Amino acid sequence: MLNKTRVIQVGLGPIGSAVARQVVERAGLELVGGVDIDPAKVGQDVGQVIGLGGSLGFAVAGNLGQALAGAEADVALHTTSSYFDLFKPQIVEILEAGLDIVSTAEELSFPWLAHPEQAAEIDAVAKSAGKTVLGTGINPGFVMDSLPLSLTAICLQVDRIDVTRVINASLRRGPFQAKIGSGMTVDDFNAKMAAGRMGHVGLPESMHMVFHTLGKKLARYEDSVEPVLAERLVKTDHFEVKPGQVRGLKQVARGYTDKGEFMTLTFLAALEAGDDGDTIQIGGVPNLEVKLKGTNGDIATVAIAVNAIRRVREAAPGLVTMRDLPLLSVW
Amino acid sequence: MLNKTRVIQVGLGPIGSAVARQVVERAGLELVGGVDIDPAKVGQDVGQVIGLGGSLGFAVAGNLGQALAGAEADVALHTTSSYFDLFKPQIVEILEAGLDIVSTAEELSFPWLAHPEQAAEIDAVAKSAGKTVLGTGINPGFVMDSLPLSLTAICLQVDRIDVTRVINASLRRGPFQAKIGSGMTVDDFNAKMAAGRMGHVGLPESMHMVFHTLGKKLARYEDSVEPVLAERLVKTDHFEVKPGQVRGLKQVARGYTDKGEFMTLTFLAALEAGDDGDTIQIGGVPNLEVKLKGTNGDIATVAIAVNAIRRVREAAPGLVTMRDLPLLSVW
Repeated sequence: MLNKTRVIQVGLGPIGSAVARQVVERAGLELVGGVDIDPAKVGQDVGQVIGLGGSLGFAVAGNLGQALAGAEADVALHTTSSYFDLFKPQIVEILEAGLDIVSTAEELSFPWLAHPEQAAEIDAVAKSAGKTVLGTGINPGFVMDSLPLSLTAICLQVDRIDVTRVINASLRRGPFQAKIGSGMTVDDFNAKMAAGRMGHVGLPESMHMVFHTLGKKLARYEDSVEPVLAERLVKTDHFEVKPGQVRGLKQVARGYTDKGEFMTLTFLAALEAGDDGDTIQIGGVPNLEVKLKGTNGDIATVAIAVNAIRRVREAAPGLVTMRDLPLLSVW
Repeated sequence: MLNKTRVIQVGLGPIGSAVARQVVERAGLELVGGVDIDPAKVGQDVGQVIGLGGSLGFAVAGNLGQALAGAEADVALHTTSSYFDLFKPQIVEILEAGLDIVSTAEELSFPWLAHPEQAAEIDAVAKSAGKTVLGTGINPGFVMDSLPLSLTAICLQVDRIDVTRVINASLRRGPFQAKIGSGMTVDDFNAKMAAGRMGHVGLPESMHMVFHTLGKKLARYEDSVEPVLAERLVKTDHFEVKPGQVRGLKQVARGYTDKGEFMTLTFLAALEAGDDGDTIQIGGVPNLEVKLKGTNGDIATVAIAVNAIRRVREAAPGLVTMRDLPLLSVW
């Protein structure tokens, strides 16, 4: 790449800021803009806001239109919302401005089953603009979908797939500890659950990518979230969890064909959860077991988003998913 | 796929026969021809030769020309030789007959560094014929190259990669036990080594794919093979290895950039080698460790070759490698 790829960072929260720092550090990429709606960030130098410890010479734009008008760019790295209704207008606006997009929006990672009409709309806008849009991340995007699918390449037959991801939240950011319910009472947790605000986003998308790629019909999908309770006092820099209170959550998604259960995805994120790690078990010919250590969620999401830029730039226009791109590596 | 993809099996040794059986079993594929040079197989029914336990109604052809003339086909599955000089004329002949090719030839898996001119010739023939050719397998093709590369997708930075593959040859075919030196004296082993006939083929190709994809220059490549000796009597169905005799081999390849060692590939195949398994360690940000169990060499090679057919049929014409194709899965 002789010319640097010019990147606008859309969303400057913790993940977006980390992505932006990586864009600044990566040879071949140039950060040319940043957007956030937080009034405390708008107008500040992007370098200061993302924690570079120095200025970049351009300010955080308060809306997309301003950012897109303010800098010529090739790619938007999009890290705002997980939810289709919230991010869709943003994605459309960026595509219409003529930029490729790498997004960490969970519901964009494989939207063809849960949001088929809206996905088709985005695909049409992208094709009409001649641009490419990808949703990626560690989960969804890698550990529970594209990696297990890649492993099936060495199988003659696959009868079932089980993936378990364990995250020891004691080692993670305060907002992450909060998100999984740390310090809540069981009643609080259940109330928040009932309001649909508890649990990891993206398990259906991972399940959909796997079923669709293997040519299986998802006859039934179940998803349950339950609190993980402290048995003794658990302290972190951010929380003090008394026995009986919540120290995290366990979420299990189950996918069935018309012949029965084919896939489970288990997401366990809790304080003092022990060793972080992922386990992928494929039952078939042969049986495979793969254990991963070190797939830190924040670093991995930042990495895969930035690493995806190369493939998205090369890809044909449209809405693509991780299973459509050639091998994605660091570069 | 409404119409079945018609496959000619080129090479009917143990792997080729297993591939052919899988083609027969797989919906969407149809075996329409088989070739081998073994006079004991030529003229026999292909179904009998591959061990189907029944007839297919067509005979093993004794040469490629006869097989290509004898059946209309879409794809050749090629499992004859590991070595470029031997397989190249076959690949050219098949491409010119208008078939796509999936080959398990190790030296074809990433030939751009070791055989650049011959690779370019094959690429030109493929493009001129409008057909696609891929070299794949478990190793090279997966465990030591495309899988580690895929794992770097979640890394911000990669400082080194180490892959170790352990194969307990006690669980494998007799010819495999022979190939790794089982029952030889150390002198025999070393003499065969000196003649260039000992050791696994394909480590350079794996190394090349990784370096090339990560944009690194391979400044130096080293490869050593040493015998693994029996400490006590080791018996299999095929061999009786006395203490001090050879029960297998250990091969280590090292790849260096101009800054030092970047990658090691360790291939240990021996009788009573303990648990089969592969370990991929990536040093960088973050550090990753991935352990695989169950990547049985024969089954995995058969599977990845047959599974690759779908992607090869969809791919643009030319010589492609595992890192160029979209996600490859069972189907």
